[in-house]
Amino acid sequence: MRMVDIIAKKRDGEELEKAEIRYVINEYTNGLIPDYQMSAFAMAIYFQDMTMKERAELTLAMVETGDRVDLSEIEGIKVDKHSTGGVGDKTTIALAPLVAAVGVPVAKMSGRGLGHTGGTIDKLESIPHFSVEMEPSEFIALVNRNKLAVVGQTGNLAPADKKLYALRDVTASVNSIPLIASSIMSKKIASGADAIVLDVKTGSGAFMKDYDQARELAEAMVEIGEQLGRRTTAIISDMSQPLGYTVGNSLEVKEAIDLLKGEGPNDLYELCMRLGSQMVYAANKAKSLEEAREMLDEVIENGEALNTLKRFIESQKGDPSIVDDPSKLPTANKLVQVVSPYTGYVKTIDAEQIGIAAMQLGAGRATKESRIDLAVGIELHKKLGDHVKQGDYLATLHVNDRSFEQVVQMVENAYGFSDKKILPPNLIYEELI
Amino acid sequence: MRMVDIIAKKRDGEELEKAEIRYVINEYTNGLIPDYQMSAFAMAIYFQDMTMKERAELTLAMVETGDRVDLSEIEGIKVDKHSTGGVGDKTTIALAPLVAAVGVPVAKMSGRGLGHTGGTIDKLESIPHFSVEMEPSEFIALVNRNKLAVVGQTGNLAPADKKLYALRDVTASVNSIPLIASSIMSKKIASGADAIVLDVKTGSGAFMKDYDQARELAEAMVEIGEQLGRRTTAIISDMSQPLGYTVGNSLEVKEAIDLLKGEGPNDLYELCMRLGSQMVYAANKAKSLEEAREMLDEVIENGEALNTLKRFIESQKGDPSIVDDPSKLPTANKLVQVVSPYTGYVKTIDAEQIGIAAMQLGAGRATKESRIDLAVGIELHKKLGDHVKQGDYLATLHVNDRSFEQVVQMVENAYGFSDKKILPPNLIYEELI
Repeated sequence: MRMVDIIAKKRDGEELEKAEIRYVINEYTNGLIPDYQMSAFAMAIYFQDMTMKERAELTLAMVETGDRVDLSEIEGIKVDKHSTGGVGDKTTIALAPLVAAVGVPVAKMSGRGLGHTGGTIDKLESIPHFSVEMEPSEFIALVNRNKLAVVGQTGNLAPADKKLYALRDVTASVNSIPLIASSIMSKKIASGADAIVLDVKTGSGAFMKDYDQARELAEAMVEIGEQLGRRTTAIISDMSQPLGYTVGNSLEVKEAIDLLKGEGPNDLYELCMRLGSQMVYAANKAKSLEEAREMLDEVIENGEALNTLKRFIESQKGDPSIVDDPSKLPTANKLVQVVSPYTGYVKTIDAEQIGIAAMQLGAGRATKESRIDLAVGIELHKKLGDHVKQGDYLATLHVNDRSFEQVVQMVENAYGFSDKKILPPNLIYEELI
Repeated sequence: MRMVDIIAKKRDGEELEKAEIRYVINEYTNGLIPDYQMSAFAMAIYFQDMTMKERAELTLAMVETGDRVDLSEIEGIKVDKHSTGGVGDKTTIALAPLVAAVGVPVAKMSGRGLGHTGGTIDKLESIPHFSVEMEPSEFIALVNRNKLAVVGQTGNLAPADKKLYALRDVTASVNSIPLIASSIMSKKIASGADAIVLDVKTGSGAFMKDYDQARELAEAMVEIGEQLGRRTTAIISDMSQPLGYTVGNSLEVKEAIDLLKGEGPNDLYELCMRLGSQMVYAANKAKSLEEAREMLDEVIENGEALNTLKRFIESQKGDPSIVDDPSKLPTANKLVQVVSPYTGYVKTIDAEQIGIAAMQLGAGRATKESRIDLAVGIELHKKLGDHVKQGDYLATLHVNDRSFEQVVQMVENAYGFSDKKILPPNLIYEELI
C-alpha cells in the first residue's frame, strides 16, 4: 500500500477500504507517513467527503491507536454527554447531578482546554478544595456509590486524532464534517460510554455558525455512534447568544446551582431538560422522553438533584456548603457596569465577542500556559428580545486585576438593537433520536 | 500574512493576490513554510483551480526564486520549443537545425532527465565526441555564429518549481492544470527565450491521455506566456503511438537526420513542419505560417538544413561525418524480431508500453543513477492503420547486454489488431496561435 495512491483515490472521490484507512491512521500515528502527505489527504477529504462507512472506520481506527477507558465495573448504562462548545455553557455542571439523581451513572472524564472560559474541570475547581485527581478504581467506586464522579483526563485517548487535529489546524482543513465528526466521536468512544448524547450548537457563539452544517455534523456523529454500537442521539441548540446569563467560571457554577434549585434561567433549564431526558431515556431509566422529563423535574422539586450535587462535591473533597451559600465561591474585586447606548429591543448579541471579552478579563486561556482567574467574568442582564432603555445596565463585568476599559467597549459593541419588537430565538432547533 | 489563511482562501475558491502568491513561493523556497502546508495548498489548487492572473503570478514568482538566463546578446528573436513529452520524440534534434537554417536563433538549454529514452542531450551524445559543456559566453558566440547551440542546463532555474514538483509527486497533486502549466512555463521563462512554441501531446504515450485536458493545458500555458510578455503558441499533437519509427537514442538521431535529408517518416515530418512554421513565424522571419513552411521545405531540399546540422555538430566537438554515414553512430550487438501473431490491421499501439520496453533494454533512465545505453532501442515496422500478416515483423529490438525475452512479449502485447480496415489518427489536432 502506498500513501500517494490512497490520497489519489480519495482525491478522485472513491470510497476507501477499511484496510486503507487503518494503514493511513496507524502509519501516521507511528510517524511512518509524513505530515505533508497527511495534510494533502485531509484536504482531499475536505473536498470529497467520506461515506458513512468510511467515517465509522476512520473513527474506530483513531480509537484503536490509543487507550480505551474501561467502565465495565460501573453498574448500569453509562451515558456521556458532549457539547460542541459555546459561550456560557455550564450545562454539564447542572446536568450531571440532575441525571445522576434519577439513577443514571455519570462517569465524566473531562479536560481543561482552551477557550473563552475554562473547561468543566476548571469551573468545578472554583469550588474550594474540589479535586479531580483520583485513581481509576476510586473513580469507579465513586460512580457506583454516588452515580456521579468527574475525573481529569487520563490515559492516551485517540493519539491519532490529537496529531491529526494539530495538523488540520495549520493546514485549513479543520472545517470538514467527516473529520470533525470522527475527531469528536473517537474521543467519546475511547472514553468508554455505552450511550452518547450530543449537543451540537449553532449560531454566532458556536463553531458551526451555520444551521445546515450543524445539522450535518449532528447526523454524522449520530451515524458514526450507531455504526460503532453506541446508542447516540443529538440536539441542535441555539448559540446565537450566550447560554444563561453568566460567562466565567465561578459565575457559571453559581448559575448551575441555581438551576438545580429551580431558579435557573429558562434557556439553560430547557436545554438541561432536553439533554437530560435523552440521557435518562438512553440509560433505560424511563420508557419515554416525557417520562424522563417528569423524573428530572421531580428531583429538582424534591431537592434530590441538589443533594446529589452536595454529595458529589463532598466526595471529591470540595466544600459542599457553597451550594447553600454560593457567596463562598471566588468573587471578583470590582463590578463594572456596561450601559445601553440605545432604547429599543436587543436584536443581536455577538456571543463570540462576549466570550473573547470574558477571556480578556482572565476567565479563559488564550494559550495552554495562561492562568485562569476563576472569579472574573461577565453577567448579562439583557438577552435577545429584551426591551432596554438608554442608560440601563446591559451587563456587569466581574473584574480583578486586568484592565477592563476595552472590554466594556467590546461588550457594548456585541449588542445590536432594533426599534421594533424582536422575538427571542428558538433554543432547540431539532432533536435527532 | 499567515499561510493557513492563504490555504483557506484558495480552499474557498477565492482569487489570491499577487502578494499572497509571492509570500507562499518565497517562504516555501526558503524553508519557512513547511511541506505540510504547501501540500495542502497544492491540493486546494487541485480542486479550486487558479485564475489566469493567479497562474501568471505563480509562474513569475517561481521564476524569480532562481537564476534567469540572459540571452540578450544573441541577435534576433530567440524562440524556444517545449514538448510535454512522448515516446520516440526526436523532434528537437531535427527541428533545431531546420529552423536555424532559415535564420531563427536557437539557443537550446536542455536536460537529461528520466524517461523511456534519454533527453535531447543524451541523444546528441550518441554522436561521437559531441559535447554540451561550454561557458555561457561560448554558447552565445556559437548561436550568433551558427544560429544554433545546445548546452547542458546550468544555473539554478526556478528552484521553487523543483521543490514543489517533488512534493506534488508524493501527495497526489501532480495532475493539476494550473500547477503543470506554471511548472513548465516557469522553466521556459527563466531560460530567457523571447517566444515559446509548445507541443502538447495527447494519447496513450503522453502525460495527458485525454484530449480535453491536453487542450486545457495548452491554453493555460499560452495564456501564461502571453501575460508574461512572451509570444506563445501551441500545437496539440497525437501521441497514441510513438512518433516516427524509432525509440532509442542513436536510433532517433538517425531518424532525425533522415528527416533533414527529406527521407523522414511522415508524422515526424509533419510535426516538424508545423512546429517549425510557428517558430519561424514567431521569430518574424516569415509573414505567415505558409511562407514559413515553404522556407523550411526549401532548406531541406537545398541541403542547408543538413549543412546547419553538420556545422552544429562540428562546433560542439562532435564528428559531423555521422550525418553522411549514420552507421558511425553507436550500434547494438544484436537484432531481435518481434513477429505479428495476427493477420489484419494495426488498431492500437500502446505507446507507453513501447517506451517502457525501450527503457528495459537500457535506452532510458529508471532512476537518476541509471546509465543509458545509447545504442539500444526499438524500431517499429508497423504503425496504426498498417496492414500486417501473421509472421510479419512488427518491430526490431536493438539489443546489447540486457535480457530481451520479456521485452519481445511487451512489444507484441503493445499491439492491438482489427480485421477491419483502420484509418491512422490525425497527427495534429489543433494549433493555438
